[in-house]
Amino acid sequence: MPNSETQEWRAPTPRESRNYPYNCWWVAALSSEVGRDLLGRWLLETPVLLYRTEDGRAVAVENRCPHRAAPLSLGCLKGDNVQCGYHGFTFSPDGTCVDAPSMGTALPAAAIKSFPVIEQNAFVWVYMGDPTKLSEVPPPHDLEWTEDPAFAFVQGRMDIKANYMLLKENVLDLTHFGYVHAKSFGISDWVDPPRSTTQGDVTGYHKSFVRSPLPPIFADPLGVAAGTPYNRENYGSFVSPALQIAAVDFVDPERGAIRGKFRVSHATTPIDATSMYYFYVIGRDHGTSAAEMAGLLKGSEIGFAEDEAMIEAVQDMISRDPRGASAPEISVKSDAPGIQARRIVERWMEKETG
Amino acid sequence: MPNSETQEWRAPTPRESRNYPYNCWWVAALSSEVGRDLLGRWLLETPVLLYRTEDGRAVAVENRCPHRAAPLSLGCLKGDNVQCGYHGFTFSPDGTCVDAPSMGTALPAAAIKSFPVIEQNAFVWVYMGDPTKLSEVPPPHDLEWTEDPAFAFVQGRMDIKANYMLLKENVLDLTHFGYVHAKSFGISDWVDPPRSTTQGDVTGYHKSFVRSPLPPIFADPLGVAAGTPYNRENYGSFVSPALQIAAVDFVDPERGAIRGKFRVSHATTPIDATSMYYFYVIGRDHGTSAAEMAGLLKGSEIGFAEDEAMIEAVQDMISRDPRGASAPEISVKSDAPGIQARRIVERWMEKETG
Amino acid sequence: MPNSETQEWRAPTPRESRNYPYNCWWVAALSSEVGRDLLGRWLLETPVLLYRTEDGRAVAVENRCPHRAAPLSLGCLKGDNVQCGYHGFTFSPDGTCVDAPSMGTALPAAAIKSFPVIEQNAFVWVYMGDPTKLSEVPPPHDLEWTEDPAFAFVQGRMDIKANYMLLKENVLDLTHFGYVHAKSFGISDWVDPPRSTTQGDVTGYHKSFVRSPLPPIFADPLGVAAGTPYNRENYGSFVSPALQIAAVDFVDPERGAIRGKFRVSHATTPIDATSMYYFYVIGRDHGTSAAEMAGLLKGSEIGFAEDEAMIEAVQDMISRDPRGASAPEISVKSDAPGIQARRIVERWMEKETG
Repeated sequence: MPNSETQEWRAPTPRESRNYPYNCWWVAALSSEVGRDLLGRWLLETPVLLYRTEDGRAVAVENRCPHRAAPLSLGCLKGDNVQCGYHGFTFSPDGTCVDAPSMGTALPAAAIKSFPVIEQNAFVWVYMGDPTKLSEVPPPHDLEWTEDPAFAFVQGRMDIKANYMLLKENVLDLTHFGYVHAKSFGISDWVDPPRSTTQGDVTGYHKSFVRSPLPPIFADPLGVAAGTPYNRENYGSFVSPALQIAAVDFVDPERGAIRGKFRVSHATTPIDATSMYYFYVIGRDHGTSAAEMAGLLKGSEIGFAEDEAMIEAVQDMISRDPRGASAPEISVKSDAPGIQARRIVERWMEKETG
Repeated sequence: MPNSETQEWRAPTPRESRNYPYNCWWVAALSSEVGRDLLGRWLLETPVLLYRTEDGRAVAVENRCPHRAAPLSLGCLKGDNVQCGYHGFTFSPDGTCVDAPSMGTALPAAAIKSFPVIEQNAFVWVYMGDPTKLSEVPPPHDLEWTEDPAFAFVQGRMDIKANYMLLKENVLDLTHFGYVHAKSFGISDWVDPPRSTTQGDVTGYHKSFVRSPLPPIFADPLGVAAGTPYNRENYGSFVSPALQIAAVDFVDPERGAIRGKFRVSHATTPIDATSMYYFYVIGRDHGTSAAEMAGLLKGSEIGFAEDEAMIEAVQDMISRDPRGASAPEISVKSDAPGIQARRIVERWMEKETG
Repeated sequence: MPNSETQEWRAPTPRESRNYPYNCWWVAALSSEVGRDLLGRWLLETPVLLYRTEDGRAVAVENRCPHRAAPLSLGCLKGDNVQCGYHGFTFSPDGTCVDAPSMGTALPAAAIKSFPVIEQNAFVWVYMGDPTKLSEVPPPHDLEWTEDPAFAFVQGRMDIKANYMLLKENVLDLTHFGYVHAKSFGISDWVDPPRSTTQGDVTGYHKSFVRSPLPPIFADPLGVAAGTPYNRENYGSFVSPALQIAAVDFVDPERGAIRGKFRVSHATTPIDATSMYYFYVIGRDHGTSAAEMAGLLKGSEIGFAEDEAMIEAVQDMISRDPRGASAPEISVKSDAPGIQARRIVERWMEKETG
């Protein structure tokens, strides 16, 4: 029986040294990344091994052999079990040590942690917190649009050398479009701060563009001429420390009907205090041909690389600044969702220690 | 109004963790390095942005947007102002935030530090200390020879992974010529320790060579045969923690007249405790043809690279030695100016905290 | 007179920050690595310079000039003495400063440490501990087989980014053969834990294979067909924190006579807490042609690189794990020699502080 169930849970890192909760579902990988090859990752400063059983179920266990600390990802799969590449200790998907070869027997004391997994939409979600609190934690947000046949989507992963909240704040304040992405996305009308609202632990923004000329990045997939005045409803939410969702609905200003829907899901998972995995899914219900989706992916990669360069530069600034947290920070109206997000993270963390 | 004027000044780093003063003029760049492209540097563990206004004035401001800590050097110039590349906050040369685009207004609270600048001789000097003490601080040393039409000079910059005082001690003890530069400079008579004198906060050395054979490096520009017995007056001074100057006057032993003057200025600016910028200007009033000056630059680059290799090796030794400051240090007579220099730096630092 | 004799000895690093003793003979280099070129190494977190005198004697002194901390390995040999490349301070093999050029004299106060050296078998051993305890410390283990004309041997060095004890534990638990070296050595019968014995400060294992099919790696040099059932006596000992020895005697099961002897010496020397030098000598009294020995070296390099990858991954796991020493460790029977080895190291360390 895996030891994760039988002893009191303790966070691997002290609360003071992090700004993320453990009692939360996080994205461990894109579904497409997990297969019959062993995939080792550090998530929340914990070594995690990801693979699929023979019948295709995604498994997440501790990526560390309790015998002599070898990463299990250097071993190999034996059916549904993983065998350590050092001395052959073998673990089932629930973390049980089913074989210690030199002992010729299973070794219950050598269990590893097995983490609950939910595979949903394009993501493999993992829960690495207190098992006794799992039922109280909101399940992974359902990106139902990814299951809508009208939609096509692309996805990707970036390994970013910055605290995960720097990306959260980036996508919660889109007034950066006119500067970071001036040459790529060409969206020049994201200037005034949006309306921002917070309900419980969800914070978000909503901005209505009325008869604003469509940049090519939006006009082309809709099949209208670039520069056509169009209405856009652009809104986004921080739905958990793990996930930020964003949407644009394109509305024909003459008819008042939604002519197209555009969706982005930004999932970020801390590797440690100064690096993260960033998983994204981007889709729409128009301009869905293979060529157009390839163009969407290419354009997104260019734009997100601009974000990456900026937030890595910010992280480097923060890391080098000897003043640390006492360095000045001036916030404006468009920062409201980002500041709410910080408070929401604080509340998630308080819950797990309170 | 920039905040640097309005609140009590505090050193960005505690005194115990550094061996340099803030209340001092330091070289931020060669004049030739500063232009209409944004130049970001860490100086004294502080991010600094350098550029020129449209009328050519050198500007130094904090290279950190107070909104979300982006390096301003990733942004762009708008006339004389710098616009942050993240959300467009714009700052004038005096540090005032003249535009926060999402607010559609200037934002006085978001001022950045603006540092006093003096451009003089080949250097852009910057003052990053307590503004209220500026009048008490000696101005940048005037390298008046660089303005003398009889002189030609070359210059350069090296980024060295060593504490800045290691270079100071290097140029204050020229008995290293026979070892570090045995194959490059070929100056073999710098053996005995020089006279050393300290007056107030200036320490220096003076050494007279009488009828000593000139090595080619000195003989060629003078137009005399290598090996000719010649007199040389070689002297140098630590004029501030930022600057060390050195001189050789070549004297015809028959006539007693100065036949040539050779000058070197070594400016060092701490990046942090274990790295520095090294800016040098080297000139003379003889052998000043373009080809000869190109040879002077080339030869200096070779020799200074020898110094760099040595002091980086010393820094690595100091950094790795677990004994730290308790490791032995034996000093000899030729170290007197270097030891005085350490004490002078201590006095500069005491002044700014006393 | 070198200062190492005249003042009370103190370990360069506190006991809490290391898991190795100083009062022990350690391998500094392969004999073949030490010559008339200066060789600088960090051993036991101490800078060490190795070279040979003109008559071929190996010398080990502190690789740090006490004047201004330059690594002496950047200098050059003057006969049997080493001259610092910075200001020319010159030291004899016993550490005496025989010349400080700018003073024109020897400088007894500037002595460096000189470490006792024993060159024996293929190794240069060095003693870097308390000189007054040298007589109480066991001399380097005699690898007498390397002097046996019936034997041929090969050797090598690896620089491994892992604590030295991780290699010790690796070679004390050969049940890793079937996993780490499954594809290289092809030794599949090292499964059950061996007998393990500890006598004083020597711990070891002994395992008898009876009529076990010989893998090609053993069969070929013996000149018997791969798969031939054969007896093997495989034993090894941790003889000091510096040295682990291993042996296989091949016994013809029909005649009961030893048909071949195979020997491996694993010497490990800490560079610091997370890196080591690994020196090995591998030999046998059969299959000793030049081509066969080249094959032995090549095969060993492949196998040892597998060990290196594994123990570097383990070190990385240990270094990154925020739980530190509180992370679980489950031991089984085959770990007995490794666990004894840790205790023996503890005893060595207690002796030098008790």
